[in-house]
Amino acid sequence: MSRKPAPKSTFDRSRCPVAVTLDTLGDKWSLVVIRDLFFGKRKFSEFLASPEGIKRNILTERLRRLERAAVVARVRYQRRPDRYEYRLTRKGADLLPVLQAIVGWAGANVPGVWTPPAEMLAARPERFYPSEGKKPARNASRKRAKA
Amino acid sequence: MSRKPAPKSTFDRSRCPVAVTLDTLGDKWSLVVIRDLFFGKRKFSEFLASPEGIKRNILTERLRRLERAAVVARVRYQRRPDRYEYRLTRKGADLLPVLQAIVGWAGANVPGVWTPPAEMLAARPERFYPSEGKKPARNASRKRAKA
Repeated sequence: MSRKPAPKSTFDRSRCPVAVTLDTLGDKWSLVVIRDLFFGKRKFSEFLASPEGIKRNILTERLRRLERAAVVARVRYQRRPDRYEYRLTRKGADLLPVLQAIVGWAGANVPGVWTPPAEMLAARPERFYPSEGKKPARNASRKRAKA
Repeated sequence: MSRKPAPKSTFDRSRCPVAVTLDTLGDKWSLVVIRDLFFGKRKFSEFLASPEGIKRNILTERLRRLERAAVVARVRYQRRPDRYEYRLTRKGADLLPVLQAIVGWAGANVPGVWTPPAEMLAARPERFYPSEGKKPARNASRKRAKA
């Protein structure tokens, strides 16, 4: 009997869950983009407009990396010309407790940070799971609530 | 009346708690070193020996940054020659729920990662708070439990 080896690319440094997570998300921007997705942003231009001022080339690279890691999905929402938006996958939505823990830490330890809406602090990942099998309505992106 | 402005250095990009936290901790190594501290490592050589293989110059830079952010404290534990070790501050110990959330995410979403000891997953930050006012015993670093 042979044990199937773990895919090399998933474990760049070790099999420690902290190191593995940081292999994908350990930078200054990925979790900022994921925050935006939780607040309903979906379009490249919307991420660009966030107050942190991410640069286009960095945003492009991060979205590609998050897509490869299956944390976000790139979805075409319009044809001719084709236009794409980004959505949290289930794996991406499961990052909510990580963001909530970070918010809790900063709120208790860094004076002066913003406090997010209470409903976001109490939300569960399931609320952000993609509705599987459903195609987005043509104007779905315009209808979504501003969080 | 004037409101006291928040110190500039704390808010490089925005006052969002996620962005502020990543300004200090948003890289591939900081939380790996903090993980090691939770497991009882305190010395530069111990961090170097971890399986991820951090380079000396990166470790030096990260420890300085974590010290500036008051997440770790550098403590002299020996004189002639002077030797220093690193300890979690209360602010650093408060990162435990962030690590636990990351471990939970990776355990559920990345097949093949290690599972940390259950007692670490259930631990509370208070367990790792520094005992204030006490100087470390001369050989305290040798006595500490291997986690």
